[in-house]
Amino acid sequence: MIETDILIIGAGPTGLFAVFEAGLLQLKCHIIDALPQPGGQLAELYPKKPIFDIPGYPSVLAGELVDNLMEQIKQFQPGFTLAETAETIDKLEDGTFIVTTNKGTKHHAKAVAIAGGLGTFEPRKPALENISFYEEKGVEYFVKDPELFRDKRIVIAGGGDSALDWSIFLSNVASEVTLVHRRNEFRGALDSVEKVQELKKLGKINLITPAEVVAIHGKNHVESIVLENEGIQQVFETDYFIPLFGLTPKLGAIANWGLEIEKNAIKVNNALDYQTNIDGIYAIGDVNIYPGKLKLILCGFHEATLMCQSVYNRINPGKKYVLKYTTVSGVDGFDGTRKEAEKAVVKAIE
Amino acid sequence: MIETDILIIGAGPTGLFAVFEAGLLQLKCHIIDALPQPGGQLAELYPKKPIFDIPGYPSVLAGELVDNLMEQIKQFQPGFTLAETAETIDKLEDGTFIVTTNKGTKHHAKAVAIAGGLGTFEPRKPALENISFYEEKGVEYFVKDPELFRDKRIVIAGGGDSALDWSIFLSNVASEVTLVHRRNEFRGALDSVEKVQELKKLGKINLITPAEVVAIHGKNHVESIVLENEGIQQVFETDYFIPLFGLTPKLGAIANWGLEIEKNAIKVNNALDYQTNIDGIYAIGDVNIYPGKLKLILCGFHEATLMCQSVYNRINPGKKYVLKYTTVSGVDGFDGTRKEAEKAVVKAIE
Ligand SMILES: Cc1cc2nc3c(=O)[nH]c(=O)nc-3n(C[C@H](O)[C@H](O)[C@H](O)COP(=O)(O)OP(=O)(O)OC[C@H]3O[C@@H](n4cnc5c(N)ncnc54)[C@H](O)[C@@H]3O)c2cc1C
Ligand SMILES: Cc1cc2nc3c(=O)[nH]c(=O)nc-3n(C[C@H](O)[C@H](O)[C@H](O)COP(=O)(O)OP(=O)(O)OC[C@H]3O[C@@H](n4cnc5c(N)ncnc54)[C@H](O)[C@@H]3O)c2cc1C
Repeated sequence: MIETDILIIGAGPTGLFAVFEAGLLQLKCHIIDALPQPGGQLAELYPKKPIFDIPGYPSVLAGELVDNLMEQIKQFQPGFTLAETAETIDKLEDGTFIVTTNKGTKHHAKAVAIAGGLGTFEPRKPALENISFYEEKGVEYFVKDPELFRDKRIVIAGGGDSALDWSIFLSNVASEVTLVHRRNEFRGALDSVEKVQELKKLGKINLITPAEVVAIHGKNHVESIVLENEGIQQVFETDYFIPLFGLTPKLGAIANWGLEIEKNAIKVNNALDYQTNIDGIYAIGDVNIYPGKLKLILCGFHEATLMCQSVYNRINPGKKYVLKYTTVSGVDGFDGTRKEAEKAVVKAIE
Repeated sequence: MIETDILIIGAGPTGLFAVFEAGLLQLKCHIIDALPQPGGQLAELYPKKPIFDIPGYPSVLAGELVDNLMEQIKQFQPGFTLAETAETIDKLEDGTFIVTTNKGTKHHAKAVAIAGGLGTFEPRKPALENISFYEEKGVEYFVKDPELFRDKRIVIAGGGDSALDWSIFLSNVASEVTLVHRRNEFRGALDSVEKVQELKKLGKINLITPAEVVAIHGKNHVESIVLENEGIQQVFETDYFIPLFGLTPKLGAIANWGLEIEKNAIKVNNALDYQTNIDGIYAIGDVNIYPGKLKLILCGFHEATLMCQSVYNRINPGKKYVLKYTTVSGVDGFDGTRKEAEKAVVKAIE
């Protein structure tokens, strides 16, 4: 059983920053995310795109912002349960919670902050008979761990950034990379398209367009796929088939936790602390709704901060908290490190 | 008369960021600040100190954060009325406002956002007879425009960072800089103390410690001051006397605008849009108070954003606003510049 003060569901920018604010209050956090990496929408959907409305950043790449947040919270040593989905929640008699993932991992926490954004990302699956049989047996909708494909033959299908970028990345990992798309044209960042062009010329990416994957074969694991173009079929041997056709977010299991839901988001009764209708469960960032709500990253930061204050009061009833400025008090990490402003000296001038 | 959509009182981080969010909504802003430079507390009180809790910045110097905000809002060409204090407000019949400063500058706006922080900074004045007579006649409590002191003789009094840093800076501007302090020891950043030590050795700063300024003489302007140490007095000729004994914030004239005040802050009825009891006047950042309020920079950013949405609805009644992501839509400045993510290309790979 993983023990923590605040269990955060969702490692998007809101969940990540909550770790920092909790740390300032000496509260430990653990984060669950369905994706294999932290960063939420920023990491999964637009890591290489610039954001212009993060205060103090005239421009910052989404992936860079995630890296900076990870660096900022490092001192507070958050725990991570990645590539698992929070499925059930139980409130114990003492007011604490147990949250269990789809893989059975159990987390015990004094408070739960749902920072689940628009929900978990469900892959758009190709309409192929038997595809569910091959899931985790050669069919992968996400690249969770590139090492899985080390020295294997892989077929990636799709015509967007993910298909292009993973083809590029995995061309150095897999023994053979084949990119299949039903059109000749790809839609993505210019560099990515050009890089794939180059790797194709070097023989490091095998390109088959226009073509569609219409069947999967194999006994207990993918052994081959069938490609079709204008009625002509071709069997193609491969160890893995990775269809990258986009993601749609789904609130998923959380929708059944007894929380008030409105417009696919979790209602928070007020903007005081972003607590839900269940005492001790908070909803912050894109996942919540309240009058005036804006689904913006900077709003998630504020909500995370107020949530942490509320949890502090919940865990330390009656204890008065005096806000300290980081500049004045410095920041003491759980790893023993300290960040602080250079101290003033008191010194005579001769 | 200066015309604008949103008149912002206070050029601290909250007021500055409001310009950006307003700009995204095509609203123009003008900012009044009592200080000669933008940045509020960050610029005036701790420009060289690091802040650790700006989301996405593991560490950023306060002065750097202000520079970054100025860069971020540049595209939206905010107007500035600096070194003037907002003194009176009049609400016109059409619901717009006129705000007048202590110097008589008038501003006409569709909405007013008070981002006044802890208020205007009032200098701690030395208890000297006649000092008020010499104000703006040789006695200056702020260095508003260093050029005022070009080739003049100046005496700075004080033992902290401001006294040290302005002595250093003005040693290249004034013809003669004398630093007076009632103790031998100064309290400040190590570099500043060392730099003053060095300039003293080079004869560029004249140091008189321990000593106090006990009188000012001059017909229509400062001509000399009297220094005292252990009962011994000495007359010292100078053109300017700059006592830098620290600042205390005062809410000031705004306290009489008919706004509900609680704990020296302006009450906002809710966290929906941070509007005050007077329709069309908002209070954002350190200056406001509501249940759960935290006086943090990151909270001011969120409040500024929600305020702008509310003003948009006020100015465009009935018009439905659809939130656009800066990453997706880009940012169109009022200066004709455009920031945008690199466009995806649609391109065949041969
Ligand atoms: C293309 C694009 C451009 C954008 N541009 C901007 C912009 O310029 N400015 C801006 O402010 N915003 C922008 N946004 C919106 C911004 O990305 C979101 O506001 C932000 O990501 C919300 O952060 P979050 O942490 O609340 O949620 P998310 O980033 O959505 O993260 C939520 C995380 O929770 C996880 N999760 C959900 N449910 C579960 C569960 N049951 N178990 C385990 N994990 C779960 C998900 O896997 C996900 O990783 C943009 C969005 C997109 C798609
Ligand atoms: C030493 C120190 C360290 C700090 N460290 C941190 C930290 O680490 N993290 C953090 O989040 N916060 C920190 N803070 C607090 C932070 O500085 C404030 O939260 C922030 O400055 C508030 O911004 P603001 O824009 O609301 O107001 P301010 O920065 O106070 O700016 C208000 C401006 O309004 C002007 N003004 C007021 N009334 C009038 C008027 N009538 N007419 C014209 N102008 C007017 C003032 O001159 C001022 O420039 C610190 C503060 C101090 C003093």
